[in-house]
Amino acid sequence: MKSYRKELWFAVPTRRAFINMTPLLEECLLESGIREGLALVNTMHTTASVFINDDEEGLLQDYEAWLERLAPNKPITRDGYDYIGEDNIDAHLKRQVMGREVVVAITDGRLDFGSWEQVFYGEFDGGRRKRVLVKIIGE
Amino acid sequence: MKSYRKELWFAVPTRRAFINMTPLLEECLLESGIREGLALVNTMHTTASVFINDDEEGLLQDYEAWLERLAPNKPITRDGYDYIGEDNIDAHLKRQVMGREVVVAITDGRLDFGSWEQVFYGEFDGGRRKRVLVKIIGE
Amino acid sequence: MKSYRKELWFAVPTRRAFINMTPLLEECLLESGIREGLALVNTMHTTASVFINDDEEGLLQDYEAWLERLAPNKPITRDGYDYIGEDNIDAHLKRQVMGREVVVAITDGRLDFGSWEQVFYGEFDGGRRKRVLVKIIGE
Repeated sequence: MKSYRKELWFAVPTRRAFINMTPLLEECLLESGIREGLALVNTMHTTASVFINDDEEGLLQDYEAWLERLAPNKPITRDGYDYIGEDNIDAHLKRQVMGREVVVAITDGRLDFGSWEQVFYGEFDGGRRKRVLVKIIGE
Repeated sequence: MKSYRKELWFAVPTRRAFINMTPLLEECLLESGIREGLALVNTMHTTASVFINDDEEGLLQDYEAWLERLAPNKPITRDGYDYIGEDNIDAHLKRQVMGREVVVAITDGRLDFGSWEQVFYGEFDGGRRKRVLVKIIGE
Repeated sequence: MKSYRKELWFAVPTRRAFINMTPLLEECLLESGIREGLALVNTMHTTASVFINDDEEGLLQDYEAWLERLAPNKPITRDGYDYIGEDNIDAHLKRQVMGREVVVAITDGRLDFGSWEQVFYGEFDGGRRKRVLVKIIGE
């Protein structure tokens, strides 16, 4: 069994952003030399996300508005409710909806994706550098 | 390390449906000959889901209504909000709540599940054939 | 390839709770002797969750209130809507938001986490003993 590990760094100046990181993962896979196996891609932070969806501008804008409706930034006044936790609490909740990690099949030396699958880094509390872990095991 | 790959096809005529695909996965596992390892099961589409829950009719109906409340089909008029993206935008959001993939332990030649765990294909934008990827690695 | 399996039991007397299970996973990893690979940690029940976030008291209280807003306990009267399924239907929905499983990289004999990543067992329908499966594969 071969094993590969790499940290990818993201520096998002705005509070929130979605970054298509698929090309970076293709480089990692090439570097790993692994042709059959599984790749784990996870954010190492609790206010960010790694998820797979379509790279379509309207969709990414809708994610932004939709997540703000599901888990609003504080202070919120809807129904008289507000959070107990810290100022970035909404970022923890938004990341939970979008997910911490993806697992991707590696087949014949490539990321085994459907036609529209793209891997995104989702930042919900930007302004500092954060890491994504890429771990690939296989042969 | 052994490696197994199969695509399963689903053709859902309605817009939405939940299909219990556990028996198909048991066939894949038997075919793979793998007795210890991990199985990744993921939809290859961005408007569908693979998830694990209980196969209970009332629950599946409640999923349907609950997801429509969290991520309504467009046009939506609640609070004057609507989506920017395409007509099937709600399908992308619903799938994000339900998840793209599951990872299942393989122990002693079987899917290592609790008593009520069943794997579902969730379709949120039907009317065309779609694929689920089954990738198993182990020994 | 080495393979390790263990069931961890949780007995939560209240309906809901979040339990930091990271120390238990560190014990499992040590016991496994695996130094490079992947660990799958999943609840074996459909009304509980395994997820990763920050161990911060305010955050956990906000999770509780936020999930109750997204997927209320029945009977609910908001907009005249109620569930069809059983009394614990909200527990199935809450678990779907929080997730069934996490996959964690194993590097150099340790759980390969960012500074604030902690693994939680989330109980949404307590009062009986439930199991979490830990499966580690690698070398």
